[in-house]
Amino acid sequence: MSVRTLEVGTGGGGYPIRIAPGLLADVGTLCRSQAPAHRYAVIADSQVARLYGPGVVTGFDDAGIDATLIPFPAGEWNKSRDQWAAVSDRMLREGFGRDSAVVALGGGVTGDLAGFVAATYMRGIPVIQIPTTLLAMLDSSVGGKTGVDTEAGKNLIGAFHHPSAVLIDPAVLETLPRHQRCAGLAEAVKTAAILDLELWDWMVAGASALSNGDSEASSELIERVVRHKAAVVGDDPLERDRREILNFGHTVGHALEALEGYKLLHGEAVAAGMRVESRLGELLGVTERGTSERLAVLLEACGLGGDWEADREPTEIRDAMSKDKKARLDRIRCVFLSRIGEVATDADGRHSFGLGDEDLGQLLATALRSAPGV
Amino acid sequence: MSVRTLEVGTGGGGYPIRIAPGLLADVGTLCRSQAPAHRYAVIADSQVARLYGPGVVTGFDDAGIDATLIPFPAGEWNKSRDQWAAVSDRMLREGFGRDSAVVALGGGVTGDLAGFVAATYMRGIPVIQIPTTLLAMLDSSVGGKTGVDTEAGKNLIGAFHHPSAVLIDPAVLETLPRHQRCAGLAEAVKTAAILDLELWDWMVAGASALSNGDSEASSELIERVVRHKAAVVGDDPLERDRREILNFGHTVGHALEALEGYKLLHGEAVAAGMRVESRLGELLGVTERGTSERLAVLLEACGLGGDWEADREPTEIRDAMSKDKKARLDRIRCVFLSRIGEVATDADGRHSFGLGDEDLGQLLATALRSAPGV
Repeated sequence: MSVRTLEVGTGGGGYPIRIAPGLLADVGTLCRSQAPAHRYAVIADSQVARLYGPGVVTGFDDAGIDATLIPFPAGEWNKSRDQWAAVSDRMLREGFGRDSAVVALGGGVTGDLAGFVAATYMRGIPVIQIPTTLLAMLDSSVGGKTGVDTEAGKNLIGAFHHPSAVLIDPAVLETLPRHQRCAGLAEAVKTAAILDLELWDWMVAGASALSNGDSEASSELIERVVRHKAAVVGDDPLERDRREILNFGHTVGHALEALEGYKLLHGEAVAAGMRVESRLGELLGVTERGTSERLAVLLEACGLGGDWEADREPTEIRDAMSKDKKARLDRIRCVFLSRIGEVATDADGRHSFGLGDEDLGQLLATALRSAPGV
Repeated sequence: MSVRTLEVGTGGGGYPIRIAPGLLADVGTLCRSQAPAHRYAVIADSQVARLYGPGVVTGFDDAGIDATLIPFPAGEWNKSRDQWAAVSDRMLREGFGRDSAVVALGGGVTGDLAGFVAATYMRGIPVIQIPTTLLAMLDSSVGGKTGVDTEAGKNLIGAFHHPSAVLIDPAVLETLPRHQRCAGLAEAVKTAAILDLELWDWMVAGASALSNGDSEASSELIERVVRHKAAVVGDDPLERDRREILNFGHTVGHALEALEGYKLLHGEAVAAGMRVESRLGELLGVTERGTSERLAVLLEACGLGGDWEADREPTEIRDAMSKDKKARLDRIRCVFLSRIGEVATDADGRHSFGLGDEDLGQLLATALRSAPGV
């Protein structure tokens, strides 16, 4: 088995990311070597638990390691304090101690929820992230963000808790529905757009193989994208400045997610968000003209076209963006490209731009009317 | 105002502890200099909010700083996930952002609960601890432990989250009921017993002044005890080994607290726990004979006599100790003195001893029969 390995720096030791098709077969010994523990709590949603749970637990059994599958109901709305409490209580009832570790097996919801369980169980036990969706492989398994959603918004309650390791088996992507795979590609397009023109060109050439889930192309894509993300997160583990660039497409994207009530996949919302934000950047004179066209062409080639019907009022979107602001006194901030492969900086050298509430409604109206592919 | 200042190392910057009678009057400017933020959420239980809330908020107002008092119902049973969620939700509703900070104003319950709110609010915002009980001043404000209780036990859900500063105003001790002040002295007796024979002798000489709440004696006591605790915690911020010694009296003490359902103050339970554990140590030949007598005399002089009626069966206490174990596979572990001022180490050099379930019932029965003052 050929294993691609990357190292993420955290300012406190760092951790490895291992990528290899078929890696799940060795899950027990890999977990033991990366995060030695007396017992493992394998947390997975009901769907993933049904698909992979028995195989993973057998993998631990075969290595003579004590592992228990702890399922929770599938669905974004279950990334909640209630499910966090229910999973924690089940672990307490079953006697998991401080010498245990959590295995987060699943997509982004599971990574966030199980990570938050680990962050707060007996003041923190290790977690190993095993993402099973392309989006989670590319994005949410790196960076140590954990948390749950509340009525007030997404991810407002949570903690930074870096995993002991991230184990990625691209073979599981074959069982993923096409629209989920395509949604995952949105994060790869984002990474190329903000950081890497060469990766952009490679994706343009290989978009069809990627959206069809070709396993060799997927492995290379994961390695290239994760390497970028690991470098950015390693430079700025607590999200003070540079890490902001990863929010490209997310200011509008999060607002759309909130408005559509999770009917839109995260990647679909980010794809629409990038379309609108790149057009906004062009209107503001920050982004090179033609960028939003190029973005729309690649997104379309990746199977990301028209997931979001642009039938919302600009004021609705603006209000949802305001609500998503993490600080009331802050202005809405947005990351803009200067051109494909490069992020613009504002007058203070910051990697995002503050937007005034007054102008934003008008700007959004124009951007929505004229953004290619929206 | 004469300010005693100590510095706690955390492996990541450290934070100051400031001790001065009357310090609360300057709370606004002190918080702003120790943890600059746009807004402060002053979290206090209903009793402390009534006593000190308006004064503290005025202190912020006078300095032109935005602060909001957020009360929660008083009582150990409110150190719960429900209150944690309610306080967090109130902060979200009122628009507290990532540029906010929490002020934990109160006893140990408030420090733990408000600290956990800060640890998990938008993945962590700063917290300033302002303890208002002697116990919290001596003990719970240092070390970064935060968390809540669940049905399965105390402090099983939580996080390490070091404060930006600890501000101690010994003048507030004058409003504390005598039995609470005395209960706080238990932690000071513990510190002297495990670490400092000279402090022990000083306490024996000054026990009456201390239990009467003499403010000069209290200030010196707080400084001496907190200096010890800060050194131990600084050596071992994540509680891997040496920090264990702070658990002297707590293995039995926690079991008594669980059995008596919080009718016993924490300090009263620890006082009884130290009596029983020092006698256990003598019976096992680990602790110098006569130690439990000396301990009983000082505790009595500090007003800590007979708070706990020893009418529990040894097997009840043993079972409660087993339940408190944080790892099912672990044996019950107990810290023993070798003599006053010094902790014993086991054959592996560890600062606690594993106890077998089989012998423990018998040993406890003998210890309970013969421990002085129980």
